[in-house]
Amino acid sequence: MLSVNEATKKIAESLAAYPIMPVEHVALAAAQGRTLAEAVTAPWSQPRAAVSAMDGYAVRAADTNPTTNANPNPNAPPTVPGQKLRVMGEIAAGRSPEGLPPLAPQQCYRIFTGSVVPAGADAILLQEDTHPSSGCDYPRAGGDSEAQSETGKTYIIAKQPVTPGRHIRPMGLDYQHGQILLSPGRRLSARDLALAASANYATLAVRMKPRVGILATGDEILRLGQTPALGKIIGGNGYYLAGLIAAAGGEPVMLDIASDHSDHLQAIAAAARQVDLMVTTGGASVGDYDLVKSALGQSGLALEFWKMAMRPGKPIIFGRYQNIPFFGLPGNPVSTAVCGLLFVWPTLQYLLGREFAPHPTQPIALAYPLAANDQRQDYLRARLVATAKGEKRVECFDRQDSSMMTFLAAADGLVIRPPLAAAAAAGSLVEFLPFPIGV
Amino acid sequence: MLSVNEATKKIAESLAAYPIMPVEHVALAAAQGRTLAEAVTAPWSQPRAAVSAMDGYAVRAADTNPTTNANPNPNAPPTVPGQKLRVMGEIAAGRSPEGLPPLAPQQCYRIFTGSVVPAGADAILLQEDTHPSSGCDYPRAGGDSEAQSETGKTYIIAKQPVTPGRHIRPMGLDYQHGQILLSPGRRLSARDLALAASANYATLAVRMKPRVGILATGDEILRLGQTPALGKIIGGNGYYLAGLIAAAGGEPVMLDIASDHSDHLQAIAAAARQVDLMVTTGGASVGDYDLVKSALGQSGLALEFWKMAMRPGKPIIFGRYQNIPFFGLPGNPVSTAVCGLLFVWPTLQYLLGREFAPHPTQPIALAYPLAANDQRQDYLRARLVATAKGEKRVECFDRQDSSMMTFLAAADGLVIRPPLAAAAAAGSLVEFLPFPIGV
Repeated sequence: MLSVNEATKKIAESLAAYPIMPVEHVALAAAQGRTLAEAVTAPWSQPRAAVSAMDGYAVRAADTNPTTNANPNPNAPPTVPGQKLRVMGEIAAGRSPEGLPPLAPQQCYRIFTGSVVPAGADAILLQEDTHPSSGCDYPRAGGDSEAQSETGKTYIIAKQPVTPGRHIRPMGLDYQHGQILLSPGRRLSARDLALAASANYATLAVRMKPRVGILATGDEILRLGQTPALGKIIGGNGYYLAGLIAAAGGEPVMLDIASDHSDHLQAIAAAARQVDLMVTTGGASVGDYDLVKSALGQSGLALEFWKMAMRPGKPIIFGRYQNIPFFGLPGNPVSTAVCGLLFVWPTLQYLLGREFAPHPTQPIALAYPLAANDQRQDYLRARLVATAKGEKRVECFDRQDSSMMTFLAAADGLVIRPPLAAAAAAGSLVEFLPFPIGV
Repeated sequence: MLSVNEATKKIAESLAAYPIMPVEHVALAAAQGRTLAEAVTAPWSQPRAAVSAMDGYAVRAADTNPTTNANPNPNAPPTVPGQKLRVMGEIAAGRSPEGLPPLAPQQCYRIFTGSVVPAGADAILLQEDTHPSSGCDYPRAGGDSEAQSETGKTYIIAKQPVTPGRHIRPMGLDYQHGQILLSPGRRLSARDLALAASANYATLAVRMKPRVGILATGDEILRLGQTPALGKIIGGNGYYLAGLIAAAGGEPVMLDIASDHSDHLQAIAAAARQVDLMVTTGGASVGDYDLVKSALGQSGLALEFWKMAMRPGKPIIFGRYQNIPFFGLPGNPVSTAVCGLLFVWPTLQYLLGREFAPHPTQPIALAYPLAANDQRQDYLRARLVATAKGEKRVECFDRQDSSMMTFLAAADGLVIRPPLAAAAAAGSLVEFLPFPIGV
């Protein structure tokens, strides 16, 4: 039987034969969670000129440094060290200082956060580091006043010296013209959208969402809302898979519940050309396998492997159906959930032009001991707990039956036990796979 | 100036005066990520009767335990210990054994995973733990055959004894009739949807999504797609906030970019009755504050606080505008991002009927030393790195200017430095807030 690692490698190798999804262009506001297909590059340097980082006055730093500032008594109240600066006008937010005369000595401009620094100025003196000159309070200018309209009749006095460059954001501080801001393959966050907006990208080139056909099989499975007779159950696996696929960046297509193998075959054959990946649940046990193999084999199923040394999920089928990858997942809810997470999720990442890679795991200490494992890699449903000291621990549920949906829903993730892992004491580190948000 | 903790407490206290969102009913498949408003309770016990956990034979365990099984030679090949069992029929998946005669001694039924265990049987003998009786191979039954149609002409021989209860899932193993499966306030995962489906919930009662008005203010802000003159920038904060709000479970409403205070006021007043929360960006600095206070004060703004001892984000405004909570966030992109995460996100959780709680943080070791902090709580953009040994570390970016969107997008989260934190050496633990997925 294949190990999980061997099977994962086999899936990754097989996928290389499939094209990744084509590109579509979507509005920026609709791009959250999508996978970028073409780089976002800077159409300009940002900021596009040196700008003020604070509200205050654009000054020549030299003007704020008095030639003599020695105070022989360190306990004396601080003296006002600076010189009187003439306020030549105001550069309101969003206004350009182009056309203003460069600052001459002992001149300054009122300036606001984000305003472009005028020629001649090399530092920003904070508003709170100034005194109004005696008898001459500088009138606060609203955003509407043109810088040019100020007449330089007011003065301020610098309380603090400033060094050149202080509180100025140089041109290109955030990014340079032509710089790659976001690279292809990136799954777009809200922060990425803000960055792309700043570079004036109204649309983004992203990968089309892979459509994934979901087909539940089994005589015992009913659709939601039907009244189940004894022996029947309401199918929940499709809802799990749809949620997993949406969270992974795909588009779930709930095909049907196939009550017999003829329905099963027809539904798969009919949908195969419209979807990019096919996932069935159930129908993966010994006898079913033979039927799937013979029935689907005639219409184009090429099997890659069946069965993997894992628990839950052993009788998983992987192959190619016509031109798309095909997963036959075992029908127990926990088996479907674990196999979906381990194999369907990374397959979607591949189709989106990202790396086919397992979910990241983290080491975490056990709250309770675990027995030794057998030859199958084990995925134990587990929840995070805190010790009395507030340290994070992981607790594997006592019951691990693969039919139990309550513990699956209550779990925070899976503790992974490699084949033949030795018994592990409380406090020893194990590998933990947290469930992705929403999955 | 309020500390972050004091301000957070004040926000939480103020929110208690607002009603949480009303209930709406949505289709199960549309409920992923929504917040449950009414408990999901089990309409039956699951499984609804004892079912088989494996493919095999439903037997009386006693029949598989031979009365004499002593083999004096331990190296001898194993003898067949069991008795010949007569196969009385098959219980296919989805079929009820009701009406079948209870198993008599030396009888069994062919059974499949999930099939209901017939009366009289108390264990499942695995298919692979049987021999067909000589000359009498049991014909494999397809899913269509009625259990009742089998005639008991075939036999099997048990290779292994089984204990009572073996491979049987008792009635109610997963959940009991009337048990609460999902509690109100829970944010629904794909696993939760599968569980609710199994309990036949075609719709779920969830909290309506809070609508959040987003208004950018500032003469320098342009809409996406406009050509910015020197001094202007394309507004990105709204896209960030929309993504944050969607990820938090709310519904963003992009109101406008208000270029002056009159526009600002009108847009807020016009939208206030249609949204459940109002968030503005920009217009929170000293002079702006006075205007916001006087202008919005006349139409119903009651300010709770302005300014918080944090970096970035100091000049944040919080209050009530007419009947909804109001946040005025500083306009620097990183300030908007941090304040959105720290205050807007938990506010949405409150409105959804969940706990107003800060994002969970985790201790993590520094990759490089940090200098001592001043009196403001600091939120440093940081990324996760691995040491040569594979240990996880956090690296704070050298540049922490609150205008820098590239480092914000590249970060994995925020390192939180409390007021007056001492200098920290590489390897020492700091508090880390990972960015939520998609935000």
